[in-house]
Amino acid sequence: MTQGRFSTDVYARRLATAANAAADAGLAGLIITPGYDLRYLVGARAQTFERLTALVLPSNGDPAIVLPRLELASLKDSAVPELGVTVRDWVDGEDPYRLVVDALGGAGVATAVTDSMPALHLLPLADMLGAVPVLATDVLRMLRMVKDSAEIDGLRKAGAAIDRVHARVPGFLAPGRTEAEVAADIAEAIVAEGHSEVAFIIVGSGPHGADPHHECSDRELQAGDIIVVDIGGPYEPGYNSDSTRTYCLGEPDAGIASRYAVLQRAQRAAVDAVRPGVTAEQVDAAARDVLAAEGLAEAFVHRTGHGIGLSVHEEPYIVAGNSLPLQEGMAFSVEPGIYFPGHWGARIEDIVIVTADGASSVNNRPRDLVVVPVGPSQA
Amino acid sequence: MTQGRFSTDVYARRLATAANAAADAGLAGLIITPGYDLRYLVGARAQTFERLTALVLPSNGDPAIVLPRLELASLKDSAVPELGVTVRDWVDGEDPYRLVVDALGGAGVATAVTDSMPALHLLPLADMLGAVPVLATDVLRMLRMVKDSAEIDGLRKAGAAIDRVHARVPGFLAPGRTEAEVAADIAEAIVAEGHSEVAFIIVGSGPHGADPHHECSDRELQAGDIIVVDIGGPYEPGYNSDSTRTYCLGEPDAGIASRYAVLQRAQRAAVDAVRPGVTAEQVDAAARDVLAAEGLAEAFVHRTGHGIGLSVHEEPYIVAGNSLPLQEGMAFSVEPGIYFPGHWGARIEDIVIVTADGASSVNNRPRDLVVVPVGPSQA
Repeated sequence: MTQGRFSTDVYARRLATAANAAADAGLAGLIITPGYDLRYLVGARAQTFERLTALVLPSNGDPAIVLPRLELASLKDSAVPELGVTVRDWVDGEDPYRLVVDALGGAGVATAVTDSMPALHLLPLADMLGAVPVLATDVLRMLRMVKDSAEIDGLRKAGAAIDRVHARVPGFLAPGRTEAEVAADIAEAIVAEGHSEVAFIIVGSGPHGADPHHECSDRELQAGDIIVVDIGGPYEPGYNSDSTRTYCLGEPDAGIASRYAVLQRAQRAAVDAVRPGVTAEQVDAAARDVLAAEGLAEAFVHRTGHGIGLSVHEEPYIVAGNSLPLQEGMAFSVEPGIYFPGHWGARIEDIVIVTADGASSVNNRPRDLVVVPVGPSQA
Repeated sequence: MTQGRFSTDVYARRLATAANAAADAGLAGLIITPGYDLRYLVGARAQTFERLTALVLPSNGDPAIVLPRLELASLKDSAVPELGVTVRDWVDGEDPYRLVVDALGGAGVATAVTDSMPALHLLPLADMLGAVPVLATDVLRMLRMVKDSAEIDGLRKAGAAIDRVHARVPGFLAPGRTEAEVAADIAEAIVAEGHSEVAFIIVGSGPHGADPHHECSDRELQAGDIIVVDIGGPYEPGYNSDSTRTYCLGEPDAGIASRYAVLQRAQRAAVDAVRPGVTAEQVDAAARDVLAAEGLAEAFVHRTGHGIGLSVHEEPYIVAGNSLPLQEGMAFSVEPGIYFPGHWGARIEDIVIVTADGASSVNNRPRDLVVVPVGPSQA
């Protein structure tokens, strides 16, 4: 498997910016265990659970990585060797939390930790520090949210790849095929179209489409089914695709078509609302208002979107209560849906990037309900 | 995919035992986000990151599950509906941490959280509680460590399945084949022999065998290579296999054979040391002492083993400093290894279960260096 990363200067810049942001926040430093923040900061895909691996990034001072000697090889393809980050390896029996405190220059200081740090490490670390850390998200969020041109390029490549998969989906849909069979074809297509792996596949047919997080099942497709297909995966060097289109096996009835048309207007309204300075919750409201005006408020049971990058779900969340003003370079999904439990559901999802004066979608397949013709013998 | 679980009374018993243990520890309750503890307690495989899902288990009172309405379907195959656990679903915009505190009966109480709870949830929860939780491991560890007969049966089935895979490994090894090609064959065999999926595959040939956590690469096998093959995966209802055997392409030279023989004695000594009342660190020392007596102390760079069950690595850890006395029903790996950087490595790993008076191995393939004949044209 190719494990791509950006050039080392990208990571050097990110480390310096993160250290400055930590200093501005009055923190002595950041402590980053494996996960997307670690990958973002030094391009390392280290994975470990019970043995502590942590990047310690003091706001003033040199960064260090504390990691089990066993895991030294996991840094090989990262930017760590070229960045000259101090590597402090440890063996079973040593206390790695002590090493983290030492790398920070002492205990009793204010620190922030990555979102994904498990309690297993966070609680002993807080003990050793003598202080409960805060979330590093508050320091790293602007950095992670505002994508640079290399990241945007990554998202566009991933978006184009998933568009090619959606272009092939009608060929996978036919009465009598199961959702799981369709999902297997889609999985193959996701990789064939250039993704490094499959992250998720939802094939929600008929009543299953009314469950936004349904994955797939042995239900056989039937003529007349509305089918929600929500798919994505990472594309090297690791930026994700995520796009939903809704398909119909045969012509939809008029009631379905008219409600779908409202959804399509809602999705369009939300995308049209995107520009720098508008808040995340205003984009959510733009979709919600269109649906509410047509009596469909209750049918839209989730937020309008989520940020995307190295992880499929990250900030900014496009949700009521999020007053974050959008900035050029932010990337997120716009994906309103309507759900009628026991009957059907529909969703339209594009990943958009905030531009200087609006939004640019990385997904460009038609957003209409995609009608897949059904042969007369099966209709 | 079959998502097996035990009968509901198993989970009812576990919940009651866990609540009692929490009460004994002076805690108001346990807070368990998705992960192995949640699966252990209610058979739920819910997975979520940024939206809080949590089982709240008061030491006196009824358990509740707080989860996003979107994730309700993830409880369908779990024991939650039959257990009558209260489900408190929430929608975007609500504060799920408040719901957790309410389910505990109020703030300011002592709680414990599951190991895997991410900082993203732990820190706001600590704020809302007005108190930093402790690790639930101290409450759940005895429960999780001491396997009941159904769990032991699960481990034995998984062990027999991985033994069948190891029996096929010699057929996958030949000069000129890459580690990655061998790993692909092994992956197919792991599933064909009954595992629900592949958890990990290490094929460490020649110098790669000297890195205990090497996975696989495009290195081509050569006659004379020593090859470490460490493989495993979950077997429904989810108990894992994990077994290592070391192979040699052609006859090993005398120096390698004699050092391997010491390793084999060390592994045997550690297994022989296992019985109730002996400590985890004594088992580690039993292997280490044999190696040290032959000048190989420096070549053994990791702990002797780890517990296994629903997760591949869990307590008890067989490591210096762990004075935990073993009990009947505990299950863990015994896997000493010797590593010669730049040259070769070897490891022998069995999963053993502590019996009334010793240890019973779930893995029963021969523990000798497995010599794979090499044709004369390739030797």
